[in-house]
Amino acid sequence: MEIEARLRKIFSGAKIDLLLIKNGSEQDPNFKYLTGFTSGTFEDNFLIASRKKVSVLTSELEYETALSQAKEGVEIVNAFGSREGFKKALSIIKGKSIGVNGDFLSFNDYNMIKKFKPSKIIDISENLIKARLVKRKEEIANIRKAVSITKFAILEVQKSIKAGMTELEVAAQVDFVMKSLGASGSSFDTIVAFGKNTALPHHMPDQTKLNDGDLVLIDTGAKYNNYCADITRTFVYGKSNKRAEEMIKFVKSVQLMAIHMLKPGVDAYSVGKKVKKYIDSYKGGIYKGKFIHALGHGIGLEVHDASVFSNTPYRKIKKGMTLAVEPGIYFVGFGGVRIEDDVLIDKNGAIVL
Amino acid sequence: MEIEARLRKIFSGAKIDLLLIKNGSEQDPNFKYLTGFTSGTFEDNFLIASRKKVSVLTSELEYETALSQAKEGVEIVNAFGSREGFKKALSIIKGKSIGVNGDFLSFNDYNMIKKFKPSKIIDISENLIKARLVKRKEEIANIRKAVSITKFAILEVQKSIKAGMTELEVAAQVDFVMKSLGASGSSFDTIVAFGKNTALPHHMPDQTKLNDGDLVLIDTGAKYNNYCADITRTFVYGKSNKRAEEMIKFVKSVQLMAIHMLKPGVDAYSVGKKVKKYIDSYKGGIYKGKFIHALGHGIGLEVHDASVFSNTPYRKIKKGMTLAVEPGIYFVGFGGVRIEDDVLIDKNGAIVL
Repeated sequence: MEIEARLRKIFSGAKIDLLLIKNGSEQDPNFKYLTGFTSGTFEDNFLIASRKKVSVLTSELEYETALSQAKEGVEIVNAFGSREGFKKALSIIKGKSIGVNGDFLSFNDYNMIKKFKPSKIIDISENLIKARLVKRKEEIANIRKAVSITKFAILEVQKSIKAGMTELEVAAQVDFVMKSLGASGSSFDTIVAFGKNTALPHHMPDQTKLNDGDLVLIDTGAKYNNYCADITRTFVYGKSNKRAEEMIKFVKSVQLMAIHMLKPGVDAYSVGKKVKKYIDSYKGGIYKGKFIHALGHGIGLEVHDASVFSNTPYRKIKKGMTLAVEPGIYFVGFGGVRIEDDVLIDKNGAIVL
Repeated sequence: MEIEARLRKIFSGAKIDLLLIKNGSEQDPNFKYLTGFTSGTFEDNFLIASRKKVSVLTSELEYETALSQAKEGVEIVNAFGSREGFKKALSIIKGKSIGVNGDFLSFNDYNMIKKFKPSKIIDISENLIKARLVKRKEEIANIRKAVSITKFAILEVQKSIKAGMTELEVAAQVDFVMKSLGASGSSFDTIVAFGKNTALPHHMPDQTKLNDGDLVLIDTGAKYNNYCADITRTFVYGKSNKRAEEMIKFVKSVQLMAIHMLKPGVDAYSVGKKVKKYIDSYKGGIYKGKFIHALGHGIGLEVHDASVFSNTPYRKIKKGMTLAVEPGIYFVGFGGVRIEDDVLIDKNGAIVL
């Protein structure tokens, strides 16, 4: 049974009686992981899980939405109609050792939970990330679908792009095509940058207009059944731009090299360092210091899932991981190039999705 | 000076030396409030403010993006290039009394901050919400623009809606029109519901197709310069649907009544209770128990800003507040109606934006 298998992974090694997840205005990714709900916001709702079962504590507002999506192993409790109902529902944690996601739980919610007198509150955020690192078949299918929607949308928009269009218009089109193809939305605010703006990795689309010969960078990702894609394409619009084209060719080759280095057992953080070293030393250092972010990150229920390419406990690559690989180089005042694809780690290496 | 005025409001009454805001994967609304940045994500970045000045601690990745947007009173520090840089930047809090947003700061970040040995860490989330309650002129202008984009987009889509379209297609169109009109995105995932789905207040658009005579509910909001709108329209598509039309007429009248009750000095929570009582008692109770959420909420940098209509310290209405007013009634198995508008509290009452 899927939910039970997920609970088993989370509880193994964690010395806890119960897991407590509390949403804020955003949903904790583990709330999604343990319910599979794709409709509803469940703002401020709780999830309390034992080794066997998940209970969702919700309000009248979303009770029906939850009930209509509840799978085996997921119980829905209409707990927040009254102060008494809420107190009763939370009283189950009294005297128990409670695991929480300390990366997400707010400081005020931590203090509120403490008032219900659990014997211990333990941060098990590492267990939660580790449980979600290796993706199961249906998770991979969702990511695959999210990726294919994203790639198709970028290609479609690339065809219709014209000088004079604004970054915001192009972003609007990308999002529109993704939703038209069945995405529930985008994994993050779509980045579209023209010309010099491409040098700012997190530039947000504005009224900047496209000129002939501009660099164009589109960084976007569809969300499908809660799972995220994250794809970046950079190209030159219209007339030739030699320096930009050289940069694109170079980054593409770097990305290929990086992807070839990824396979089970490899240390992703080291791969990132090797890639940085390669970029810094290329042609006597013409791109030295211009690769200013990590090589990539895990993707899944969060667009930035486990920080696999950083100095974290998740650095070691395993079969079944899904990763975004995104080398880039940025020249302030000229422009930047980033190429990003999502890969699945297989027995022998990385498969581009 | 705008930033200094904002800081003065926040620090007044709070016994703190410094304010520390730490973003997660989402931006703390107070980070937006004290920087005014409209481009960039600033994931995991810090903001440290004294009574006079704001320092943004960022990384190479977004240093240029921050610098290009920095207003008077906002200093940008490229702090996260190295472990030493990070430690040095944070060392300023040692021995100081530090205010944090306990509603947003994660439990793990709280523990991390503690390691830098401040004399105290104080949750000042209430001060922060209170400082942002009454909007200044330029904030109101942004909200007004977000609202007008949203209303126009819904009207445009209403014109082009056709039987057979899916909820997702309609949602995609709404978002597309909002962005085309200059919105940077939507304040939350646009809700589109047809027929029975309208009975679920937080239904997410799916492949459900529109039928003649269906209830259609669109709940959406543009984001403009970080400021949110939140508008809901419910109507019947095509052939007459008496029961649904009766419900719409009723909810519209309830909303008008509610808006007329809002003015400076009034207790918003009590207004909500009165409205609920009225709905429950209408025509011998035909809608009794069918209004299952709060009457509304503050809007601003967050789509759910201060919980003005709940039992909170923000219940008392003041001139300059901006509120969403959204009565609704929901019949599971049949459908629901919600009408939502955004209002500005003026000297004499509420002005519909």
